[in-house]
Amino acid sequence: MAALPETNIAASRAALAGRLSGILPPDALLTEAEDLKPYECDGLSAYRALPMLAVLPQTVEEVQRILRVATETETKVVARGSGTGLSGGATPLGDGILMSMAKFNRIVSVDPLARTARVQPGVRNQKISEEVAYLGLYYAPDPSSQIACSIGGNVAENSGGVHCLKYGLTVHNILKIEVVTIEGETATIGSDALDSPGYDLLALITGSEGMLGITTEVTVKLVPKPQLARVVMASFDDVEKAGDAVANVIGAGIVPAGLEMMDKLATEAVEDFVHAGYDLDAEAILLCESDGTPEEVEEEIAKMETVMKASGATACRTSNSESERLKFWSGRKAAFPAVGRISPDYYCIDGSIPRRALAPTLRRTEELSKKYGLRCANVFHAGDGNLHPLILFDANVEGELERTEAVAAELLELCIEYGGTITGEHGVGIEKINQMCSQFSDAEREMFFAVKRAFDEKLLLNPGKAIPTLNRCAEYGRMRVSGGKMPHSDIPRF
Amino acid sequence: MAALPETNIAASRAALAGRLSGILPPDALLTEAEDLKPYECDGLSAYRALPMLAVLPQTVEEVQRILRVATETETKVVARGSGTGLSGGATPLGDGILMSMAKFNRIVSVDPLARTARVQPGVRNQKISEEVAYLGLYYAPDPSSQIACSIGGNVAENSGGVHCLKYGLTVHNILKIEVVTIEGETATIGSDALDSPGYDLLALITGSEGMLGITTEVTVKLVPKPQLARVVMASFDDVEKAGDAVANVIGAGIVPAGLEMMDKLATEAVEDFVHAGYDLDAEAILLCESDGTPEEVEEEIAKMETVMKASGATACRTSNSESERLKFWSGRKAAFPAVGRISPDYYCIDGSIPRRALAPTLRRTEELSKKYGLRCANVFHAGDGNLHPLILFDANVEGELERTEAVAAELLELCIEYGGTITGEHGVGIEKINQMCSQFSDAEREMFFAVKRAFDEKLLLNPGKAIPTLNRCAEYGRMRVSGGKMPHSDIPRF
Repeated sequence: MAALPETNIAASRAALAGRLSGILPPDALLTEAEDLKPYECDGLSAYRALPMLAVLPQTVEEVQRILRVATETETKVVARGSGTGLSGGATPLGDGILMSMAKFNRIVSVDPLARTARVQPGVRNQKISEEVAYLGLYYAPDPSSQIACSIGGNVAENSGGVHCLKYGLTVHNILKIEVVTIEGETATIGSDALDSPGYDLLALITGSEGMLGITTEVTVKLVPKPQLARVVMASFDDVEKAGDAVANVIGAGIVPAGLEMMDKLATEAVEDFVHAGYDLDAEAILLCESDGTPEEVEEEIAKMETVMKASGATACRTSNSESERLKFWSGRKAAFPAVGRISPDYYCIDGSIPRRALAPTLRRTEELSKKYGLRCANVFHAGDGNLHPLILFDANVEGELERTEAVAAELLELCIEYGGTITGEHGVGIEKINQMCSQFSDAEREMFFAVKRAFDEKLLLNPGKAIPTLNRCAEYGRMRVSGGKMPHSDIPRF
Repeated sequence: MAALPETNIAASRAALAGRLSGILPPDALLTEAEDLKPYECDGLSAYRALPMLAVLPQTVEEVQRILRVATETETKVVARGSGTGLSGGATPLGDGILMSMAKFNRIVSVDPLARTARVQPGVRNQKISEEVAYLGLYYAPDPSSQIACSIGGNVAENSGGVHCLKYGLTVHNILKIEVVTIEGETATIGSDALDSPGYDLLALITGSEGMLGITTEVTVKLVPKPQLARVVMASFDDVEKAGDAVANVIGAGIVPAGLEMMDKLATEAVEDFVHAGYDLDAEAILLCESDGTPEEVEEEIAKMETVMKASGATACRTSNSESERLKFWSGRKAAFPAVGRISPDYYCIDGSIPRRALAPTLRRTEELSKKYGLRCANVFHAGDGNLHPLILFDANVEGELERTEAVAAELLELCIEYGGTITGEHGVGIEKINQMCSQFSDAEREMFFAVKRAFDEKLLLNPGKAIPTLNRCAEYGRMRVSGGKMPHSDIPRF
């Protein structure tokens, strides 16, 4: 779809603003370019667009009214949480409404016995844990952006984090959501009990990137804070050995609370920045955490150390205090900004592979790095097989961005080849939409579209994200064959 | 829909058999009443119907060919595993094809490092664990019927079991399925990695009771066999105290491997049958299992015993050997047949509630038992809040079946009232289809229907199960208001 000419947009904006101003408080409607600017992109900031207008509803009724107007006027709607997503799931559309859920920021209730909390979608991930800390409980999924990201965004992207190896993704940590359909109807999905009858719409909507409905409330599960957590930091003189050590830990029947890997380029960048005490002689380090009762942790840590050494670790240190544990993790948590200090730009790839393919994938990443002449820092959720290679480039050097995208494309194809997927936890959005053509067959993609149409027949909710059209994939196939290049989407890149 | 007259069925059968005999081996097509008899019902044996014909495909291609014929001729198709389901999900249709997946009985491959197995849908649940026992692994979900039930049926019903409190339902223990759509197209749903991009169709299809596609292969997760398991058996002089003890165990941060409750009527029936050593003075007993390393188990068992005593247990015994543990469980596992010995008929209710509602629900069950003059034995997955009251009745005594159904209906409404659901793990099938009208709003049921149509526009795959039509619910609502009664479905009950 081509963008509408600017004059048409202005006319549409005025007409729509007229309709919406009648049903919303004045401060819930933004139409001026300067007010819309903060919403022009999410964490995938290379792609930007000013929305036609933005709305900030505060009640379910306001969301219903807005969506009814959208349906009547056939206007597209993109919902947005904190905008920390990395795949462009919340990139606005120039001819669409941007709906910010920022005003849905209340924790509605906490049930300590059932260990659940009802929260509005704009509540920050970390805020939930802060609010229930006095009960000895917390909300487990912890994306890197947890200080800022919202639970509604987490549901939209099915977010993970360092601890999802043991505690599961967002979908495993929520019980129920309230949604509003594009027609403005409310529905309760899931229940307060074990399971819900009928098709599993809770899992279907979780991770659907705002394309099936707008979430207005989330019932999250809370888990008891472990009494103790300790982390083993193991050094390896070879990245492949570190990859094998990961498989060996899991193969030994251990389920670490977190199992992360960083290669030399990443640890160097980080050490210079936060002084976490990383072994700079190592080609790779692993951070392997155990949590539970002191007895459980002691036993598990001993097992982890044994496996690390048997897998060829050249050094092995275990945190002896909470401050030391946090110090070990500080480097991992600062890895992205640290890499940002040593390169003008970097591109974070998100793919996943079966764990057995870790070592060969690392080898191939190194080959690609050499082939395209771009440095690559590897930082990832190794236990999950979730890769985050960071490709270092300079957007001002001609051809570097294109070469970066070529590395990413080759690595994601490799993930598919190994039986993995083109995204581990960052979502598809506009970033990975072409790769969906490689991951899925026509019949499989047609299933996605059929589901989309079942919830949103006119394709008004966040269209153009996550699910490519058959046409788009046909074009992508032709471009790949001829070595050509297709832009990620029609959204302008700056 | 009214059943077709018998002559029409005969003509349709002959025409369809003619089509199918050209594309299937002779032993894969059954058309004679005596051959069809074994397929006339599943575990909900009160409802029976001879299918128009039955097919037993052995390859994916045969499944595809059958479904293409079904689509072309607009013939309904009901797929079936071992037929152990309790809600009539596999009850045949008199004007439909019954597709038995019994010949899909191979374990395709086992990957010990990834801890997965690719299995065909007709493989028995327990067979998987038997085949991988030499690796120290097993498949965790363990429905009571696990000796007989098939993994394809488990996927269709999202089956649970005693250990799903700790290890999750079927959906949490599978990675990938191969399905054939009603149009005869194949699709791979899920992946060998952590997560799969796009909408979560794996969760959507799991538990969809064969209404969205036919599963032809399942990749299951395998877990390491715990080194040790022990079980605490606690007695209570009051069922409500036992209910509160369950909440207290979970509230203490313990995740038992299993947490089951039986009331006096159930233990009496069982003890007489298997001599498990149950305390016959107790009004209720709890069985609470811990598994893991010997150190973990020792610590957890001590905690469990402390909580049981603090919750008012009058006696507490812990298994000291594997044979004693199995003896404690033998009663629980034999509970259904044991109740069958003390009553001509019994009806097993399956509902779920938040754990906090255990005690009041037990009180209400007792009141209903008195009100309707029917004995009720309570046996259930207490840790999950999944109730299985067994209503004892005699179908030959006029009015007892109707009174039994009235108790069931009142109890399920109570589950909804407490924020629970009308089924914990047995599925909806034809048994609970009216209760879906109470559980969900029109908008919510319309979502289910929209999903159904997205996968199966002509409503040929197992129609009339799980998802009631709006009309049906309107009628059910009227019947409830007027105190009338609507048959569960148009399938004749014998």
